[in-house]
Amino acid sequence: MPSPLPPDEASSRPLALILAAGLGTRMHASVAKVLHPLCGRPMVCWVVDAAREAGCTPVVVVHHQEDAVRAALPGVACVRQEAPRGTGDAVRAARAVLPATGTVLVLPGDTPLVRPATLADLLVRHPGRACTLLTLHPADPGAYGRVVREGDRVLGVVEAAEATPVELGIQEVNAGIYALDAAWLVDRALPALRPHPPKGEFHLTDVVALAAKEGRLDAYGSDDPEELAGVNDRLALAHAEDVLQARILATHALAGVTFQRPATIRVEAGVVLAPDVVVEPGAVLAGSTVVGAGARIGAHAVLCDTVVAPGARVEPGSICEGARVGEEAVVGPMAHLRPGAVLERRARAGNFVEVKEAVLGEGVRASHLSYLGDATVGEGTNVGAGTITCNYDGYQKLATVIGKDVLIGSNTAFVAPVSVGDHAVIGAGSVVTHDVPADALAVGRARQVTHPDAAPQVRERFRSRAASAGRDPKR
Amino acid sequence: MPSPLPPDEASSRPLALILAAGLGTRMHASVAKVLHPLCGRPMVCWVVDAAREAGCTPVVVVHHQEDAVRAALPGVACVRQEAPRGTGDAVRAARAVLPATGTVLVLPGDTPLVRPATLADLLVRHPGRACTLLTLHPADPGAYGRVVREGDRVLGVVEAAEATPVELGIQEVNAGIYALDAAWLVDRALPALRPHPPKGEFHLTDVVALAAKEGRLDAYGSDDPEELAGVNDRLALAHAEDVLQARILATHALAGVTFQRPATIRVEAGVVLAPDVVVEPGAVLAGSTVVGAGARIGAHAVLCDTVVAPGARVEPGSICEGARVGEEAVVGPMAHLRPGAVLERRARAGNFVEVKEAVLGEGVRASHLSYLGDATVGEGTNVGAGTITCNYDGYQKLATVIGKDVLIGSNTAFVAPVSVGDHAVIGAGSVVTHDVPADALAVGRARQVTHPDAAPQVRERFRSRAASAGRDPKR
Amino acid sequence: MPSPLPPDEASSRPLALILAAGLGTRMHASVAKVLHPLCGRPMVCWVVDAAREAGCTPVVVVHHQEDAVRAALPGVACVRQEAPRGTGDAVRAARAVLPATGTVLVLPGDTPLVRPATLADLLVRHPGRACTLLTLHPADPGAYGRVVREGDRVLGVVEAAEATPVELGIQEVNAGIYALDAAWLVDRALPALRPHPPKGEFHLTDVVALAAKEGRLDAYGSDDPEELAGVNDRLALAHAEDVLQARILATHALAGVTFQRPATIRVEAGVVLAPDVVVEPGAVLAGSTVVGAGARIGAHAVLCDTVVAPGARVEPGSICEGARVGEEAVVGPMAHLRPGAVLERRARAGNFVEVKEAVLGEGVRASHLSYLGDATVGEGTNVGAGTITCNYDGYQKLATVIGKDVLIGSNTAFVAPVSVGDHAVIGAGSVVTHDVPADALAVGRARQVTHPDAAPQVRERFRSRAASAGRDPKR
Repeated sequence: MPSPLPPDEASSRPLALILAAGLGTRMHASVAKVLHPLCGRPMVCWVVDAAREAGCTPVVVVHHQEDAVRAALPGVACVRQEAPRGTGDAVRAARAVLPATGTVLVLPGDTPLVRPATLADLLVRHPGRACTLLTLHPADPGAYGRVVREGDRVLGVVEAAEATPVELGIQEVNAGIYALDAAWLVDRALPALRPHPPKGEFHLTDVVALAAKEGRLDAYGSDDPEELAGVNDRLALAHAEDVLQARILATHALAGVTFQRPATIRVEAGVVLAPDVVVEPGAVLAGSTVVGAGARIGAHAVLCDTVVAPGARVEPGSICEGARVGEEAVVGPMAHLRPGAVLERRARAGNFVEVKEAVLGEGVRASHLSYLGDATVGEGTNVGAGTITCNYDGYQKLATVIGKDVLIGSNTAFVAPVSVGDHAVIGAGSVVTHDVPADALAVGRARQVTHPDAAPQVRERFRSRAASAGRDPKR
Repeated sequence: MPSPLPPDEASSRPLALILAAGLGTRMHASVAKVLHPLCGRPMVCWVVDAAREAGCTPVVVVHHQEDAVRAALPGVACVRQEAPRGTGDAVRAARAVLPATGTVLVLPGDTPLVRPATLADLLVRHPGRACTLLTLHPADPGAYGRVVREGDRVLGVVEAAEATPVELGIQEVNAGIYALDAAWLVDRALPALRPHPPKGEFHLTDVVALAAKEGRLDAYGSDDPEELAGVNDRLALAHAEDVLQARILATHALAGVTFQRPATIRVEAGVVLAPDVVVEPGAVLAGSTVVGAGARIGAHAVLCDTVVAPGARVEPGSICEGARVGEEAVVGPMAHLRPGAVLERRARAGNFVEVKEAVLGEGVRASHLSYLGDATVGEGTNVGAGTITCNYDGYQKLATVIGKDVLIGSNTAFVAPVSVGDHAVIGAGSVVTHDVPADALAVGRARQVTHPDAAPQVRERFRSRAASAGRDPKR
Repeated sequence: MPSPLPPDEASSRPLALILAAGLGTRMHASVAKVLHPLCGRPMVCWVVDAAREAGCTPVVVVHHQEDAVRAALPGVACVRQEAPRGTGDAVRAARAVLPATGTVLVLPGDTPLVRPATLADLLVRHPGRACTLLTLHPADPGAYGRVVREGDRVLGVVEAAEATPVELGIQEVNAGIYALDAAWLVDRALPALRPHPPKGEFHLTDVVALAAKEGRLDAYGSDDPEELAGVNDRLALAHAEDVLQARILATHALAGVTFQRPATIRVEAGVVLAPDVVVEPGAVLAGSTVVGAGARIGAHAVLCDTVVAPGARVEPGSICEGARVGEEAVVGPMAHLRPGAVLERRARAGNFVEVKEAVLGEGVRASHLSYLGDATVGEGTNVGAGTITCNYDGYQKLATVIGKDVLIGSNTAFVAPVSVGDHAVIGAGSVVTHDVPADALAVGRARQVTHPDAAPQVRERFRSRAASAGRDPKR
């Protein structure tokens, strides 16, 4: 069997075996537990990264939804556990990649809050033992294995199902994160594993028991027990995201970002924020969003994969996906930038304006109630309220090209493909179906006809129509 | 006096007397305290339900805003307290419905956080005593009655106003929730009640004192003292809703719902969520909203009385009231579905689109800036940006009926009543005033007229107009 | 040097010297630390107000961004520290305004959470000592000066940099808030100050040390240590705003305002809310906003400098800036009121409606997708969906005046300047370029032309166009 480790990782760094084969039935989900996103990244990625940052080479044991898990972990070595036969079996499945000496870390794929420093500390403390495990003191020890001590000395771990009432009262429990002596694991512990009836599962806790029997087991608790808690249901998932959010926001805040009502804000892991950015309550920043210095993200704005240049403002209630907002440009409030929307410097897309695959040149103002799709608008052009690019004929998307310094009257429709030259003027209410040359005036609307004193007759017609329909014709 | 209990409840179940006669002046409200909504239900309903779930038959004592309180409690027995003369008088007012034997629970209508299990536990512990009361240890004992003990034995309850400084230092206070021996209450305690000057009120605490005097009083505290706190002002009201929200969200999360930033989300008590639903930050789900499996509710979306089918998406910032969203349909972002809006399978109402009393057939796309009211749109039709149904003539709402696979150009207005047949095409910018047959092309717009080189003159006219108005005519 | 104190403050009240000269490099900001806003007010203003409410006359020591700090503190006496040479130097800089007798309070400009009562208490406890300082017990004492005691007696304060390991273990630290005997400070302590190498700074802690040496130092801790924490970075800034928000919301709640999910709501310090107001989740109320009794502010609504009359409703997702909303008027959902927008009694601006510098008379309904700018609309007028005032000709804003009880058809554009008389009717889809008299009917649209059976040809033309463009012509 060829090693699944990429050459540059097949080094002397400790190997971290991450157990990600389970389904997680308590999640009541169609996706495997370790794939649930946390702050925009699958849960298992947080564990992989923690292992990496602690100096380990991660190897992930997969089974359920193997392809999806592998796809979530590009560049990470994975080994397949043929059948879900317990945590011990998961380590057996990885035997071919285990090193002959040194330390092997084993950790569950559902502990996304574990900190690199905690793992690094475990690696430092471990040598000399066969097994060192991390413990926590949860509010409700529940089904966790209890850590039995005599004084400071660790005697072993008792599974909750097999614990005596006294043992069930123990508050210190096994987090399922182990440092193991590689040679001992491969040569002694794995060969000694035996399947447990009735399901024939192999338990990693038997490895712990062996270390205890040999007097080579140690255990210690984290200062922050929360980081070791496993995510077994979506209540824990929601809590884990809150914890990660607090860490992400704290990092940005210490680097100079102002958050108003930080607990209402969601910033995914891949987001980059410059100093002096202000983020108002309820904002959601997702994907690969980048916000430049001094920019302001308004209340309840939602940005995904969007680049906001320094000094720009995204006003409250705006939604931006895959867009680019130039320096000192203004979006919204309540604008919608879709993929391919580009606002150049000082451009503006105002309220109830949608922009998609369109470039608004420098200083362009599209302030009200417009749809600009598959369009380019030259610098300095004023787009009147209610302007619409009719970019779809039922078969394809067609382009509208508008020049510089054009004055577009309100309620104008451009029937693409169509172009308008620089400095042209379009009368309000026009339907523009033919190209307009530079400097031309185009109007496509009917003349107003006013019928003096005719309104009462119109009203009477409407009133009697309502009456004959059985409606109460009063206003 | 006929029993106000419905026959099916006049059973051997313990009676729970809920005191809901007060006004609650510290709420500074026009409605009685027990009517303030919590998670979409009046406060007193939470207490009534807790009593029911604990196995009791609830009877509510009413006085202030009696009609409104009764209306909030359909099917629940109520008795009227003629004058607000204290908690003891409230129990006297219910004398006609008190059973001859067994246990009577008495609890305030303003403790909406009390758990059924706590009441059930009280009922189990009580027998043998005349009175058993629940206690709590609040951060600030304030005006609560102090529970005086000698060792474990309860000597009595001392009202704060009559307590010695030493007694005021007691941390254990009376929650105002009592289990009482029915026979003792009716035969001994109630007859012994005497009015207190100056207001002539009857105090339920005198019942407690009598039990104490007879050595038949017991008291114990809840593990979760928070659940016993009374709501006396809107700070406590806000806190109570947060506590109930946490319970509601936890229940949904454990059943398979993902909540992002759960503390920002509000889900009312009557909402039904299927597994694998994802709810983004800031979403508000109210009334009888039902969300099907795998559906996604976007950030800051607000849904009331809306049914969202499996696999549908409500995008961020959308508002839905009394609407139906079909399977894999997409709403928003920033769409508004009003009562009677129906999106069939895979239909779409996009940004700045309002739908009211209208059915959008399978696969209909109304993606931008439209108002569809009192309309039906056949399957596969494409509704151009800026389409408006002119459904109101000043006297009545009128219908627009659009067939299947119609191609509606942008900025089209339908002047109802009007109909469009299947496969028709409507030119952009049209005002449709007459029915359009199937397969017809309808256009109602002026031809574009282009005046070469006329734009400078137009601008000059506007510029000089601004100048003569004293405006600075620079752009 | 003339006293910078205004005459009415140059009284016998204690002087509170507020140190606001620093830059605050850990804020990573372009503005000085004390100018960062908290709940809509610069940080230093919170400290100034706390001092005032504690009965002191505030004097602020300024240096960095002096002009901006002075501008943030109209009516407050400021003195300039010529160079940023330490806290002791800051007090020296204020020597000219220090009183000859009585008490001087010295407090940092970056402790915005300090409560007036805490300062008042310090003033009461102080007399008899040369120096009394406030202490706190932070989770991480970090760089704070440690308070060394022998029993209850305070021996002195040791700076973290100079502390022994044992001293570093002390949990009680110096908050940097001092009450000082004025005569002792001026006559003994300030003259004794000496610069510290290498920067030549003067340390206020030397004043503390002198008091300790003389046996005239005392110290005590706040019941709420949180209030004394300094804001040194934006993580602390965000936390401070949350603390102030909790105080602001609690005050409003106790006065009768209902907050749903209070932790998601932001209410700035200058906002006025009447009883029986309901504020839904995520709402932001900023500036000088005033909300009348019984009004309702919907989820995620953002209001700034807006007056909402009693009984009005601002529906979810609406944004109001500098607007006035009349009694029982309805805004939104998703409406945008800009400065100068006035909704009279029972008027309505519905979804995707923008109003700017416009008055909507009593009962006016502008329910959908409209832009009303520089306009007046008379009472009872119905503004059809898609109505737009074309108020900009590229050079100036022009007015639209619409009378009473006008019926405006959908998709109407008013090309300003233009006026419409009372009771007129405007046909849907019109472009109104000329004044419409009262009672007239005005229509400015083309007649509908219907081409039977022409749609297939149109589609075929579009289909072949797509095909020749290399697009897949299927729908």
